[in-house]
Amino acid sequence: MSILVIGSVALDTIKTPLGKAERILGGSAIYFSASAINFVPVNIVATVGEDFPKKHIKFLQNKGINTQGLSIENGKTFHWEGEYGWDFSNPKTIRTDLNVFANFNPKIPKSYQSSKYIFLANIDPEIQIRVLEQVKNPKLIACDTMNYWIENKRKELLKLFKKIDILTINESESRELTNQKNLIKAAKDILRLGPKIVVIKKGEHGVLLFTKTHRFTAPAYLMETVSDPTGAGDTFAGGFIGYLAKTKRINQNSLRRASIYGTIMATFAVEDFSLGKLGKISTIDIEKRIKQFKRLTSFKIKP
Amino acid sequence: MSILVIGSVALDTIKTPLGKAERILGGSAIYFSASAINFVPVNIVATVGEDFPKKHIKFLQNKGINTQGLSIENGKTFHWEGEYGWDFSNPKTIRTDLNVFANFNPKIPKSYQSSKYIFLANIDPEIQIRVLEQVKNPKLIACDTMNYWIENKRKELLKLFKKIDILTINESESRELTNQKNLIKAAKDILRLGPKIVVIKKGEHGVLLFTKTHRFTAPAYLMETVSDPTGAGDTFAGGFIGYLAKTKRINQNSLRRASIYGTIMATFAVEDFSLGKLGKISTIDIEKRIKQFKRLTSFKIKP
Repeated sequence: MSILVIGSVALDTIKTPLGKAERILGGSAIYFSASAINFVPVNIVATVGEDFPKKHIKFLQNKGINTQGLSIENGKTFHWEGEYGWDFSNPKTIRTDLNVFANFNPKIPKSYQSSKYIFLANIDPEIQIRVLEQVKNPKLIACDTMNYWIENKRKELLKLFKKIDILTINESESRELTNQKNLIKAAKDILRLGPKIVVIKKGEHGVLLFTKTHRFTAPAYLMETVSDPTGAGDTFAGGFIGYLAKTKRINQNSLRRASIYGTIMATFAVEDFSLGKLGKISTIDIEKRIKQFKRLTSFKIKP
Repeated sequence: MSILVIGSVALDTIKTPLGKAERILGGSAIYFSASAINFVPVNIVATVGEDFPKKHIKFLQNKGINTQGLSIENGKTFHWEGEYGWDFSNPKTIRTDLNVFANFNPKIPKSYQSSKYIFLANIDPEIQIRVLEQVKNPKLIACDTMNYWIENKRKELLKLFKKIDILTINESESRELTNQKNLIKAAKDILRLGPKIVVIKKGEHGVLLFTKTHRFTAPAYLMETVSDPTGAGDTFAGGFIGYLAKTKRINQNSLRRASIYGTIMATFAVEDFSLGKLGKISTIDIEKRIKQFKRLTSFKIKP
C-alpha cells in the first residue's frame, strides 16, 4: 500500500560543532519519503522553486519516490538556515526564507487520491485539513505539528485532531499542547482530543507510544557519531508509517515494531548531512541495525 | 552475600511544585540500603548527630539493615535543603549544613570487614579510598561520585577509579569527567580509567550500561505521579548491586537484569517523599513492576 506525504521540500544551510553544509536537500517531506520508501511506494506532494536542482528530483525518482505531486513554482525554494550546539538538539534558526512555500496550496494528483496511508508533515493545520478534503477513504491518517501552530492556530489544530489516527509530536510540544508537565498525562490528554495513537518523540532519549489501552517505551539507539540531527523526527515517522503500511496491520505488536523501525531509520538520518547516509541504505542495512538494537535492549526477567 | 555501603545519612528539607517535607530521612546510604535490603543483607556505615530521631534507626533495623556502623556523634545530623522545579531534576540547593558529616571518617566494624560487595556512595574520594583500605578481599566494588569531586579532587578520583569494578554516574557528570559530549565516547573514556563496568544514569530517560565488550540500553519506567526524585540514583544503585549480590553472578545477562531491577527500585523511591513508598514495598511489589516494565518495553523483530 502506498503512502501519501504532504510537507516541505527545502534547501537547508546547517552548521553543527562538527561541520557545515550549504543549501543541501532537506524538508519534512524529503526525510519522510527517503525513509518510508524503504517499506512501500511513496507519493510526495510539495512545492519547490525554479532554483531547485534537477539532480535532487532525479535522485528522488531513482529511489522510486513518485514526484508527480512536486510542483515547481515561479520563485525560490524554501530555505532554512540553522545552527546546532553540542547537544545536537533545539537548533538556533539563523534565517527562514519561506519563498514559494509561503503560497503552498497542495493539490493532490488524481493518481494519488486513493492513497490509503497519509502523512501530514508539519505545516499549517488549515492546509493539513484541506489535504484531507481531497483524499478518498484513507485507511490511516498520521500527522505532525510544531509549537508555532500550537501557539497560533490552536483552534484549527484541534479541528484537525478530530480527523486523524496518529499524532507524532515531540516532548516539549506535547507539554505545550496540553499544559501537562508529565508525559503520561500529556499523552492521555491528547488521546482525548481525537488521535487514537500518540507517539511522543524524545530525540536521543527514545520514544513513548500511547493508545487508550496500551503503552510502549523504547530507548533511542545512541550513535557514537552524530553529524546532523535535522529531519530525524520526520525520518522516524517515515519508518513508523512505512512499516505499518507494509504490514497492513495496526495492532499492539505492529505499533511496537513500527516504533523500532522509526527509531532505526532516524539513526541513518543523523549519521550524515541531508540524505548522505539515509539515501543510500538498503533493506539489509536496516535489518542489520534492527537486530543490533534488539541485542542492545533485550533482557530476560527470569535468571 | 551481604553488601557494605558507605555514604551519607541526612535529614532533608525538600520542596517540589507538588509539596514540601521538612527534615525527612534521606542521604545516599539510606536510599541505597532501603533498596538493596530487598535483595541481600546490608551493612551501613555512616554518621549522624544526637538529633537523629531514634525512630529512624529502629525503622532501618526493622527492615533488617545492620546499623552497627552507624555512629552517633556530638553535634547535628547532615541537613540538606533543596527545591525542585517542574522538570523534577537538577534541584536548587537552598542550604547545606554538613554538621557531623564534615568530620566523617568511616570506621568499618570488624563484623563488616569481610563484606564481598561494597558500594561507596558519593563522598570525598579520599574517604572512599580509605574505606577500601579497611576491607578484605571484596568480590565487587562499586562507587558513585558527583561534579564537585570531579572539579576539586580529580587526582584522588582517578586514583580511586583504578581500584573499583563499577562506576555509577549521571549523564552530565560523565560528560564533565571526560570532556566528551557523546555518551558512548564518555563511557569508553571512563572504561580506560579503571572501572570494568560503567552505568550512566539518565534519570527519567533511562540508563546506559557499558563494559569493554558489551552495551545495554534501557528506558526509564515513566511514572504518572512523581512526588520527590531525591535519592533515585542511589536507589537505582541499591537495586543494581543488590541484584548482582543476590545472584552472585556478573555476566552480560545479570548486568542487564540488574539495570532493570535498579530502574524499577528507583520508581518506588520517587513515588513519595523519603522512604514513604520505598520503605514499605515487598518482593511481590517489585516483581509485579518488573513484569509491567517487561510488557511496556518488549517487542519482537519478526512479524
